[in-house]
Amino acid sequence: MRPGVPAPRPPDTRGCIYTPTHTVSADGSAEPYDTRLTSLGTAEIDDNMALTNPMPMGPWKITVYDQEHFQGRRMEFTACCQNIMECGMENIRSLKVECGAWVGYEHSSFCGQQFVLEKGDYPRFEAYSGSNSYRIERMISFRPICCASHKESRMTIFEMENMMGRQFELCDDYPSLQAMGWMNNEVGSMHIQSGAFVCYQFPGYRGHQYIMECDCHGGEFKCYREFGSHAQTPQIQSIRRIQH
Amino acid sequence: MRPGVPAPRPPDTRGCIYTPTHTVSADGSAEPYDTRLTSLGTAEIDDNMALTNPMPMGPWKITVYDQEHFQGRRMEFTACCQNIMECGMENIRSLKVECGAWVGYEHSSFCGQQFVLEKGDYPRFEAYSGSNSYRIERMISFRPICCASHKESRMTIFEMENMMGRQFELCDDYPSLQAMGWMNNEVGSMHIQSGAFVCYQFPGYRGHQYIMECDCHGGEFKCYREFGSHAQTPQIQSIRRIQH
Repeated sequence: MRPGVPAPRPPDTRGCIYTPTHTVSADGSAEPYDTRLTSLGTAEIDDNMALTNPMPMGPWKITVYDQEHFQGRRMEFTACCQNIMECGMENIRSLKVECGAWVGYEHSSFCGQQFVLEKGDYPRFEAYSGSNSYRIERMISFRPICCASHKESRMTIFEMENMMGRQFELCDDYPSLQAMGWMNNEVGSMHIQSGAFVCYQFPGYRGHQYIMECDCHGGEFKCYREFGSHAQTPQIQSIRRIQH
Repeated sequence: MRPGVPAPRPPDTRGCIYTPTHTVSADGSAEPYDTRLTSLGTAEIDDNMALTNPMPMGPWKITVYDQEHFQGRRMEFTACCQNIMECGMENIRSLKVECGAWVGYEHSSFCGQQFVLEKGDYPRFEAYSGSNSYRIERMISFRPICCASHKESRMTIFEMENMMGRQFELCDDYPSLQAMGWMNNEVGSMHIQSGAFVCYQFPGYRGHQYIMECDCHGGEFKCYREFGSHAQTPQIQSIRRIQH
């Protein structure tokens, strides 16, 4: 693909608001190790892109690179990408979130391990994969979190499956559910009334992540298997809102 | 060491409020792999400990284990531990924070990588080491964070060293400093006016951690080398309060 040429539009399966117009902005060099040279050409490429992509960027923008430290082939997205390999990129090894909140996935079509991506620089895998226990070395699909920054994020966690047992309503960030009085290290089911949250396996926002949105599954997650395609236990020990 | 026998008191170099009375509660078995048997004896040991250690637990309590998943030799602490090896434990491979907020360190005497520990269960290394980029497999010292849960946590971050350049006052949790308007991915210096904060290398509370307290260095951290003994760059992209 050449600079400024829009790549094929990937199917939009998650109700993204913005049209997936992503623009290939790297020079498509066949030399994978010639990353410094590619990087030096970035300013030129940006100008070119600005000319050929006059669309407003909207509230979401992410730039991904196929080499660490923002080197190598580079692409910008303002909406979902179901499979980065279909855009001619083998993998994502660094990225910059420039606007909005996103969720990245280990596999294509929004499957596998998931991890929240907020505004900032992620120079290598380790910066965005959330869990030490399962070392993700792939990010193949990603999408905006459309209901993040709902002015009032609110969810209820339940002790047992199917919204049964003791419950607690959350509308803040909780680095330790047990410190706020939750009885153990598990959550049986949950209901997201508004906004978006990220739930973590361990205290202090560590371990496997589950991104939970009010506009997904009607906001209802009746058992841990619905938390995510990679969920293996109901262990959840910290939860926070996703805002941007 | 035998159940209920207080171990030697380690030097207290960080101004902990509580006396370091830690109690060896494991059976000191010479068989390192006989962990299930050791675990089955825990209830009995707990009763014994309650009888021989009538001190109130106070606002901090942590239980550490020398095997993963809360198995093996077990010790409880209500104050600092400068070197777990001096207590006869080779390393810490799982832990439970039962009360208060703590900071763990890679090396003895509160040196090396640091990571915040809040109430909850940490069944293995990966649950408490914060950074994927530098895989910590040791936790040798730890201490309570005495000024956590100050009723009003407040700090100021500065663009440049020695409290110079643009500044921003923080009194909340910020998963992305850039999303709140901070100009880049670095913080030059900082001043903690009250409470305690944890600063992270990457957005979303990932990467290297720096625990910052108002009662340490007078709350002033004039350049990134003062952020921690392991700090190698001024890169900081998310910050949150430590509460319990």
